[in-house]
Amino acid sequence: MTDSGLALDPTFPQGFRAAAMAAGIKPSGRTDLSCVVSDEACTWAFAGTRSTTAAACVGRNRELYREGRPVRALLVNAGNANAATGARGVRDNADMAGALGSVLNVDADAVLTASTGIIGHPLPMDRVLGGVEHLPEELGTAAGPFAAAIMTTDTRPKLAQATLSTGARIVGTAKGSGMIHPDMATMFAFAFTDARVDASALREAFPAVVACTFNAVTVDGDTSTNDMAVVLANGLAGDVDPGEFLAALEGVMRDLARMIAADGEGATKLLTVRVGGARTEAEALTAARTCCVSPLLKSAVHGNDPNWGRVIMAVGRSGAAVDIERMTVSVQGRPVFAGRPLPYDEAQVSASMRAEEVVFEVNLGVGEAQGEAWGCDLSAEYVSINADYTT
Amino acid sequence: MTDSGLALDPTFPQGFRAAAMAAGIKPSGRTDLSCVVSDEACTWAFAGTRSTTAAACVGRNRELYREGRPVRALLVNAGNANAATGARGVRDNADMAGALGSVLNVDADAVLTASTGIIGHPLPMDRVLGGVEHLPEELGTAAGPFAAAIMTTDTRPKLAQATLSTGARIVGTAKGSGMIHPDMATMFAFAFTDARVDASALREAFPAVVACTFNAVTVDGDTSTNDMAVVLANGLAGDVDPGEFLAALEGVMRDLARMIAADGEGATKLLTVRVGGARTEAEALTAARTCCVSPLLKSAVHGNDPNWGRVIMAVGRSGAAVDIERMTVSVQGRPVFAGRPLPYDEAQVSASMRAEEVVFEVNLGVGEAQGEAWGCDLSAEYVSINADYTT
Repeated sequence: MTDSGLALDPTFPQGFRAAAMAAGIKPSGRTDLSCVVSDEACTWAFAGTRSTTAAACVGRNRELYREGRPVRALLVNAGNANAATGARGVRDNADMAGALGSVLNVDADAVLTASTGIIGHPLPMDRVLGGVEHLPEELGTAAGPFAAAIMTTDTRPKLAQATLSTGARIVGTAKGSGMIHPDMATMFAFAFTDARVDASALREAFPAVVACTFNAVTVDGDTSTNDMAVVLANGLAGDVDPGEFLAALEGVMRDLARMIAADGEGATKLLTVRVGGARTEAEALTAARTCCVSPLLKSAVHGNDPNWGRVIMAVGRSGAAVDIERMTVSVQGRPVFAGRPLPYDEAQVSASMRAEEVVFEVNLGVGEAQGEAWGCDLSAEYVSINADYTT
Repeated sequence: MTDSGLALDPTFPQGFRAAAMAAGIKPSGRTDLSCVVSDEACTWAFAGTRSTTAAACVGRNRELYREGRPVRALLVNAGNANAATGARGVRDNADMAGALGSVLNVDADAVLTASTGIIGHPLPMDRVLGGVEHLPEELGTAAGPFAAAIMTTDTRPKLAQATLSTGARIVGTAKGSGMIHPDMATMFAFAFTDARVDASALREAFPAVVACTFNAVTVDGDTSTNDMAVVLANGLAGDVDPGEFLAALEGVMRDLARMIAADGEGATKLLTVRVGGARTEAEALTAARTCCVSPLLKSAVHGNDPNWGRVIMAVGRSGAAVDIERMTVSVQGRPVFAGRPLPYDEAQVSASMRAEEVVFEVNLGVGEAQGEAWGCDLSAEYVSINADYTT
């Protein structure tokens, strides 16, 4: 359904254009200020961090989402999270949106904002506002420059897309390097579609899509102050089957989620944990996520150690209901536990873990519900990068 | 109140004796089988892991605790957790207890058990039972050999003690190297006292003592299948003031908890987070623990980086209620945030973090409740140790 990776530099769905520039927010001089603008008003859906210290952009978008009016643009800066910056940060965030609205000649409340980067430093507003003034000059249909401009410590841009049977398209971008980010407020996911999607249906369905895609990625257990996922639908490609659309959106978001997990700092492989036989889907997902966040299991995966005792430990810690006598665990398709330890060739299973993706399958033995989560391995390089970051 | 560290090799309170031997369970050949025996029947309290995949020893002790009869002995093996070992593991655990009861001539149900080490391997019962037969020959009053025999990857034994005004004593031991343990089921805490303590009062008070001591230590967020805390009181020193006793017990357990945190694999310093101004004590503790388990904050502490944005992030993630406009953060006594970023000398604060203990003080600005948690820094050495452990 999704054809991510086929087109390395896709264009946006019809009616969407993006611009990116280097406004001088990132010390590296890379592009750091970008926007996506829709010719038509968009229905949209939003999911923001559950952090109780959420940044100004999350708070403002959430408020706009409550009001429920259509939006026209999304303005993003990377390099500064504008989080924990007090009343000044709230004003700066509103001023960013107002400035772009003014240049585009749309209402400020039709402009969403997203900031990512260091926490606790005021935005350099002269550079932001100076950049915004010239951003519309750069508008074009390529998605690549936007995907690059929203990165912080990501090593590569993250793009995924899907085409529906009617020809309507979904293009998604995300940022987040999946592991610990020094000072970084971590994850954004933005999806754009020219399908015509009913606003209330989209709002209703979006939380479930986020739950089984982005919320199933876990890398260090830290929830950022700025995390958000947004989908904008401008309707230019006309009506689509709602079920087909949601499945395609979920596919795009799952691809992006796996890209985030695989691009962890110091990560050498993707960790996938599939849990079945659970009492509820929520418990299956919790058990899978707890495995993916476990430093013990992540270390074992890095060392190609088929250390299934750590899966037993992590599942037990998750609180999900388990019948340990009926519980099963397999590593790379090889059964290693079924109510009791099973004999297996450790060297052979270890060799099978020298792969781009390591998959654990777990059955909890108490029901029928399933869930899947993604993470990455934990390497010494990762800690070196982060522990050596200092003043 | 506590005098931990003053006596490096304390003796047990009167009426308690311990034995330790190398039974061949640890490949290293170090002592790995030990017991503590009381001349008199003991009132006791127990707290076990909340893991849903708890080991056989935790399940059996919990069952005995429900029944509520006095106990006479505690049998511990290190090197093998006897967890995820199926019905055989349950039998082996009962047989261990039965064997010691038989040699001591006490009821098997008066013997508690504790196993720690690798998960998912059957106990070498010939060695365990062969050792138990000879254990009583080694019984003596020194606490040091017992504290050493319960270690796995700990770098040093952990002992703390207190003496009450009546002369009654409390001696506590713990194990747990506080960071990721390859295959290890992690934490034990055992306290022994000759104070006479009412059984039901002790049972009632113990969960709160554990909550603000051992449950306030967090190192990698992983809850082991075998964690347990036990206190045995044999009454030989007579009655004590219950309030004085509980305060002394809490002091001993807090000392042990801090020792566990400071002895993390690869850890170079203790991390202490004190949270005040919370709505409830539970929220204060959750916020403090979330800071201590954050890989981001732990990395910053390792790098002497006064990176208070990570405290804002971790507190926000914890879900504790916060008024960010009234929130304050200090690092090593230096205020860095008070509703907005405060100016400070980064080099000076960084220098102050080159210490054995780094303390963050946080006020959430919404109430009066307080809580404190302990952890340690995250170093590259720690990941190297664990990631390079392989088959």
